Amino acid sequence: MSAYPAPLARLIHELCKLPGVGEKTAARLAFHLLKGKKEDALELADSIGTLKQEMGLCPSCFGLSEMDPQAGQEAICRVCQDPRREREKICVVEEPADMIAVERSQEYRGLYHVLHGAISPLDGVGPDALRIKELVRRVEGSQIQEVIVATNPTVEGETTALYISKVLKPLGVKVTRIARGLPMGGDLEYADAVTLGKAIEGRREI
Amino acid sequence: MSAYPAPLARLIHELCKLPGVGEKTAARLAFHLLKGKKEDALELADSIGTLKQEMGLCPSCFGLSEMDPQAGQEAICRVCQDPRREREKICVVEEPADMIAVERSQEYRGLYHVLHGAISPLDGVGPDALRIKELVRRVEGSQIQEVIVATNPTVEGETTALYISKVLKPLGVKVTRIARGLPMGGDLEYADAVTLGKAIEGRREI
Repeated sequence: MSAYPAPLARLIHELCKLPGVGEKTAARLAFHLLKGKKEDALELADSIGTLKQEMGLCPSCFGLSEMDPQAGQEAICRVCQDPRREREKICVVEEPADMIAVERSQEYRGLYHVLHGAISPLDGVGPDALRIKELVRRVEGSQIQEVIVATNPTVEGETTALYISKVLKPLGVKVTRIARGLPMGGDLEYADAVTLGKAIEGRREI
Repeated sequence: MSAYPAPLARLIHELCKLPGVGEKTAARLAFHLLKGKKEDALELADSIGTLKQEMGLCPSCFGLSEMDPQAGQEAICRVCQDPRREREKICVVEEPADMIAVERSQEYRGLYHVLHGAISPLDGVGPDALRIKELVRRVEGSQIQEVIVATNPTVEGETTALYISKVLKPLGVKVTRIARGLPMGGDLEYADAVTLGKAIEGRREI
């Protein structure tokens, strides 16, 4: 028998399913909600409960978009809708969160394409499980001139980048890869050998 | 304008109100919920939303208890109901979570009394803001022989313990304080001076 009363035990059990939340953290969060204002708890419950039905994927770039309450279907996302965006560039990322990270950098004003994963043979994820076909279709016969592959600098991300460049090159589009090098504020002394190697390889005239 | 779509931004904002959850953690949790199963999100939302209405305080010990759905009021908690409990002992703790911690130790089979705080003049919390009057009333003219004060070993907890012993002593009840000393598995070398002092002061014959 759990030491907690049933409703509290149930909440702790559910909170434990979240990433990085163990039983102690879950209990701390649960007691916080129990002690706090009722409106705060209800607001949190409602925003979790409605999240899935209010969020969808943009049918064009597969980034996050809000559902259109009238049509009851996914709406084109804010980036794809924005007329000020440069429509001849597509930045390819693995996940919706990556798209938000690139947006935050404020260095990019083109469109996006979210793959929803990366090629990983060990996990049984091949190119067909990703939104690569859709990317090819978007590029084909369009005004797109450059595809910037911003997948993660991991084995899976690099593999995916190579694959994408292979399938897009025949279409006559320029395929580029984001630079890999030392992170800003980093320290040469503590950089790993692979990163340092990439930084030297990718050096540019100043 | 936030980089997140509105429903996601709202959830992140709500999650940020939880203790120890910053914006990065909140975003990670939100994306986890968005990617995960719909049932898991709804189950979590429901357990947060119903927590406050299903939980109440035991009218006897002020520990956590479940609401009685028929009567629509707080029920006597499981510990107070249990006929196998030693009814001549009361363990006084600051918070409901402390009561659960003592239960976990399986060293104690008596009753509890939850103060819901500790005396803290700096925060404007005096004895009247706590459940001390109710404790005195429980002890008066009852079969209770020992009150074990298990408030935290902090300035506030010690002050509260002293105050409780002062108001209960005239009633002819034995008031004890839990031992303060080295934590099990601790290291003498790294113990702070106050703890070590308390450990020596509280030494017992073996």
